[in-house]
Amino acid sequence: MMPSVCFYVTYGLCLCVGLLCVLFVSCWCSQWRGGFAWDGSNLQFNWHPVLMVSGLLVVYGIAAVIYRVPFTWEQRKYPWKLVHAGLMLLALLLSILGLWAVFDFHRAAEIPDMYSLHSWVGICTVVMFAFQWVLGLAGFLLPCSPPWFRAMLKPVHVCVGGAILILSVTSCISGINEELFFSLNGATGEVYDSLPLEAKFANVLGILIVAFGLIVFAILSRRPWQHPEANESAYPLLSQDCT
Amino acid sequence: MMPSVCFYVTYGLCLCVGLLCVLFVSCWCSQWRGGFAWDGSNLQFNWHPVLMVSGLLVVYGIAAVIYRVPFTWEQRKYPWKLVHAGLMLLALLLSILGLWAVFDFHRAAEIPDMYSLHSWVGICTVVMFAFQWVLGLAGFLLPCSPPWFRAMLKPVHVCVGGAILILSVTSCISGINEELFFSLNGATGEVYDSLPLEAKFANVLGILIVAFGLIVFAILSRRPWQHPEANESAYPLLSQDCT
Repeated sequence: MMPSVCFYVTYGLCLCVGLLCVLFVSCWCSQWRGGFAWDGSNLQFNWHPVLMVSGLLVVYGIAAVIYRVPFTWEQRKYPWKLVHAGLMLLALLLSILGLWAVFDFHRAAEIPDMYSLHSWVGICTVVMFAFQWVLGLAGFLLPCSPPWFRAMLKPVHVCVGGAILILSVTSCISGINEELFFSLNGATGEVYDSLPLEAKFANVLGILIVAFGLIVFAILSRRPWQHPEANESAYPLLSQDCT
Repeated sequence: MMPSVCFYVTYGLCLCVGLLCVLFVSCWCSQWRGGFAWDGSNLQFNWHPVLMVSGLLVVYGIAAVIYRVPFTWEQRKYPWKLVHAGLMLLALLLSILGLWAVFDFHRAAEIPDMYSLHSWVGICTVVMFAFQWVLGLAGFLLPCSPPWFRAMLKPVHVCVGGAILILSVTSCISGINEELFFSLNGATGEVYDSLPLEAKFANVLGILIVAFGLIVFAILSRRPWQHPEANESAYPLLSQDCT
């Protein structure tokens, strides 16, 4: 198999598994958890898993691998930087909205915030992601950014990007696990350890999330799939002044 | 700072945080969860977090970065392969013992096995780790292993090694989060959302686990810290026959 064919098969799998993650988390919350609202009820909480899985994991992962698509290598890099930054901004906004949904639900239901390990890891993930986005904007998109800063930032940006992916998978899995113990052992009368259909479905969602995270990690790690930086200018706007 | 000084500072931090993870999980289980026994009681369960964090995370992480230590580059590679494989075997055996502890406790307490998402992700981690170890032995230590197999296996081995690290952090965090909801909202009378001292302590353990995973990931990712393969024979026993 040609390297690019091999890439596109893996990339296609990545997109399909990502889509399945969004479908499964939406279906779980609408079929078993009662659907969606923005009224401080449990239905508002349901936005939290949907927005975090969609934003912090799936859109984030798709944005992370965008430079690996060989199709983009034949084109100017700057527009693809804008696509990368734009998708990352979308991922960040969805994540912040997802946090807002759960904080607002907690306020209405008088549940304390930020006590569980899931919430500690999750907030670290989003804060790290926000810093990463702002530094990425300053370093790689603003024309006034000095070359030494870009050169220093790049390996840090790549490494922190991978770290956010790890934290994102960890936050999603610990959150779904926690929610299943809460909701199944609570009011519904069903218990998690009897593995009712909802439990099986949400566990499969968790496995899909892990699979998506690992496929993104594999694409990012594989050297032959990395952007041939040497053949292009990494900093197309470097000669312009910042006004 | 010289690259190797920078490495050794990060490596020292990695070892310290790893040691703290083992101390914190042991202290949590002995101070708040009643200590250890092998009698089917809750005290047997306590071996599970200690053995998984120590084996699947800390020993695994230290074994994974062993080739990055510049001190080893001046020496023959084969003995360091044995150290890597030996530490990985220790990590695997501790993990299997950790699984045995929880399955045996479940059997005695008549609790069903393998229903939570944590258990699904955790078992995938250990199974993947066992396959990785056996394939690593067959590919890199047995002298009869054909060169094409070693060459094909190497990038897969590196990538799957990173994937196991991600799964290991995810399993540990989801497990500690689950155990805190079980134990604090159960018999003790304390509730997790009031953040008693135990909850704060175990949450800090979770953050240490995440920090350790990310430091190992950073060491593995940084190209200047990778083994200068080109200067050495990667397959010192290749010319020998397998008998």
